[in-house]
Amino acid sequence: MLTRTSTQSLTGQLADRLAERIRTRLLPPGARLPSVRECARQQGVSPYTVVAAYDQLLAQGLVEARRQRGFYVRDSAPAQDGRPPNAAPMVVQMMASRVPADASSLIRSMFHRPSDKPQPGMGVFPPDWMASAFMPTAVRRMTSTAALQELSLQYGEPSGDAALRRSLSNKLVGINVPAAPDQIVTTVGATHALDIVSRTLLRAGDPVMVEEPGWALEFARLEALGMRILPVPRRADGPDLEVMAQYCQLHSPKLFVSVSVLHNPTGYSLTPGSAHRVLKLANEHDFHIVEDDTYSHLAPEHATRLSALDGLQRTIYVSGFAKILAPNWRIGFLAASPELKERLLETKLLATLTTPTLFERALSWCIDQGQLRRHAERIRIRLDGARGRAVKLAMAHGCSFASEPAGLFGWVDTGVDTDALTQRMLDQGYLLAPGSLFHARRPPSTMMRINFATSQDAAFWKVFSKVRAEL
Amino acid sequence: MLTRTSTQSLTGQLADRLAERIRTRLLPPGARLPSVRECARQQGVSPYTVVAAYDQLLAQGLVEARRQRGFYVRDSAPAQDGRPPNAAPMVVQMMASRVPADASSLIRSMFHRPSDKPQPGMGVFPPDWMASAFMPTAVRRMTSTAALQELSLQYGEPSGDAALRRSLSNKLVGINVPAAPDQIVTTVGATHALDIVSRTLLRAGDPVMVEEPGWALEFARLEALGMRILPVPRRADGPDLEVMAQYCQLHSPKLFVSVSVLHNPTGYSLTPGSAHRVLKLANEHDFHIVEDDTYSHLAPEHATRLSALDGLQRTIYVSGFAKILAPNWRIGFLAASPELKERLLETKLLATLTTPTLFERALSWCIDQGQLRRHAERIRIRLDGARGRAVKLAMAHGCSFASEPAGLFGWVDTGVDTDALTQRMLDQGYLLAPGSLFHARRPPSTMMRINFATSQDAAFWKVFSKVRAEL
Repeated sequence: MLTRTSTQSLTGQLADRLAERIRTRLLPPGARLPSVRECARQQGVSPYTVVAAYDQLLAQGLVEARRQRGFYVRDSAPAQDGRPPNAAPMVVQMMASRVPADASSLIRSMFHRPSDKPQPGMGVFPPDWMASAFMPTAVRRMTSTAALQELSLQYGEPSGDAALRRSLSNKLVGINVPAAPDQIVTTVGATHALDIVSRTLLRAGDPVMVEEPGWALEFARLEALGMRILPVPRRADGPDLEVMAQYCQLHSPKLFVSVSVLHNPTGYSLTPGSAHRVLKLANEHDFHIVEDDTYSHLAPEHATRLSALDGLQRTIYVSGFAKILAPNWRIGFLAASPELKERLLETKLLATLTTPTLFERALSWCIDQGQLRRHAERIRIRLDGARGRAVKLAMAHGCSFASEPAGLFGWVDTGVDTDALTQRMLDQGYLLAPGSLFHARRPPSTMMRINFATSQDAAFWKVFSKVRAEL
Repeated sequence: MLTRTSTQSLTGQLADRLAERIRTRLLPPGARLPSVRECARQQGVSPYTVVAAYDQLLAQGLVEARRQRGFYVRDSAPAQDGRPPNAAPMVVQMMASRVPADASSLIRSMFHRPSDKPQPGMGVFPPDWMASAFMPTAVRRMTSTAALQELSLQYGEPSGDAALRRSLSNKLVGINVPAAPDQIVTTVGATHALDIVSRTLLRAGDPVMVEEPGWALEFARLEALGMRILPVPRRADGPDLEVMAQYCQLHSPKLFVSVSVLHNPTGYSLTPGSAHRVLKLANEHDFHIVEDDTYSHLAPEHATRLSALDGLQRTIYVSGFAKILAPNWRIGFLAASPELKERLLETKLLATLTTPTLFERALSWCIDQGQLRRHAERIRIRLDGARGRAVKLAMAHGCSFASEPAGLFGWVDTGVDTDALTQRMLDQGYLLAPGSLFHARRPPSTMMRINFATSQDAAFWKVFSKVRAEL
């Protein structure tokens, strides 16, 4: 909020806020700023204040004025791989005042809380949900001088800490994924694991099937690597097999990226029948499948995984601990067939060499002691309660759920353009995750993803209703 | 060594040793195993033992027999991007019994000590050189329960810990590289920083200039990313400018990768005149330069850096702490112009999201307290002594230095093929870094890189002389 008691002028506050939003790409290149009158109304300041703030942004080279059309965020970064530098403004022009969602905006905003309020757009549990007594104990077990010298002064094993790989192997047995410690490679979070898989199996220009809606980062990364994304509609029981079969006929894709269990953003989980048919198709058309099981800690027992059915023949299993234990430890891992594992390990070495052992060893202890399992149980129970409350609130405020609520995320139809809604809600200190971000081409959407752990606040839903009504 | 008192048969021991070497690619696909007679002589066992061991390897599918020609390591990984699956064996055929150096072999062997002896092929200081009292103190300052919750339960800042970026910015001022904290991005070691730079600035097929000889990992990574490597001969004063000018005319490369100070493996440092001409060429032909300053902690005062002269206009500065403090912490960083930094940060997010904050915060403390600076001074003094001894020993054993010994590495001419030498020395428990690994095309070479910190052992040089005489 702009405050009159601040040591900074209202103009300065407004200019700084917009500049920050441009810098973090919450206002992406090509976006049109609100009209002076609209901005004055939204912010509760005079039009003179807005004009002065826009002038400061002009002077800083962050925006440009277009005659009769208003102010637009400048595209400061050099044009990349053939995209004409003015592509973004043209799109904006066509969409009038709608701000196009930028692939990196949600990703960056994950790290950028606009206020201390609960943030429904977040992708992780709030820190107070994850706090535990055992985690600090686990780390401190590794911080004696002798342990620190052992765990710090050598690169460590390329595949990752052997103790952790044993713990993970045991854990995977529990979900019927047959991975020996030797078939596992630890990574810098599940993100890095997915990156390693795509870099190892694909070359620039290769076609790759990805579920849609799907996690923005996956689309953005494959795009940056120059891959041809073939979006596969995700249904309640699994991916759309007819679409996949057509892609196989036409494009011979080499890889399919799938979140089988508690799919992000829909919460869908794969059925055994669908899993069987996906694997059959993969065998017929000889493609690999990377199964992103990031939400495994929240999954119901006996959930179906492709990697379990396939026995890691042509599947690569990926998971991590950002959603349950400690996002900042950046521990993820992948499991694959022995041959493929060697190639994936090579890519890890080329990209980052090894990964820090201390946290891996601490995590291994948390798993072996059963602490992580009990912690996950507690969080699942708490999440069930939060989900119930959030669903009631959302429906009471005119939203509907596109899928049966499950897991961490709800996939919600708001009835209005959620890119525009997101910009307005930012002014109120709330971060949303608009639907456009979950699609490869980022079309306008009335959907948004909510985090059940951070959407139980009646105050949020009140503001949400008010802002939506103004659109 | 094979031992007769082991609980395992000599055959089993020999088969296991060779299998391990094949798995870690110290014996790469396509390599020919020594003849039965030769192997028996080298290992001091009977030909029957060797035949039985080779049979085990055959049964495990690790090697194949070719009539009249012997045993060859099988290429188990599927052929990649158009390389015919039998390319490696053909090369071997032409080179008779010479084992071709594999790009990943040195890299993997960095993590794989064949024995407890000092390893002249290593790329880092031995742990006992880096051990310090302040490092454990620094980590333990960050492990109170409150600190661990703060540093673990959120993703952390995308650019890296703000305290560390301030410390690094101050440190860079000391070497005249003008980088504000906002221009710095932390990474998973310098390797990750170099990876981010190449992924951001290059697309598959793009030409990129790299100094030669140069660090094997850089060649291997650019190759894996599908780049066209243009090797630039490295001279004592800097890169060969005539060759660079020709490349610019013919290929319009987008990037030049350079280790200006204490170049790996030669130990050369760039002169101011050469630096000026490199930058002039970069301006004329509009390419970026990534300056890998991994050895900055060992560098003489007033060493010339391209990034300092250029003021980070078209240079990107990269460094890390694996060579001085703690390889396993995996902390590196890059510094670039404000615009380019945003693009590089985007690539970091896509590849790994954030990096672990705890070690970054601990490192920041080590820098701010002056501990790291004093530690580096102590190591430099110790290294000067070690270098003197190692140089004398090397010369006394018939080696000559291709460049004035400086920094951590010596670039040594042995007079014999160092790929063959490396295989034989492995049998004696020593890891070498053969010259072929420092070249993009990995041609036969009589050069090897030695680590001065691990080459002061008279026992090593005695074995070295003996094995070399047998070649």
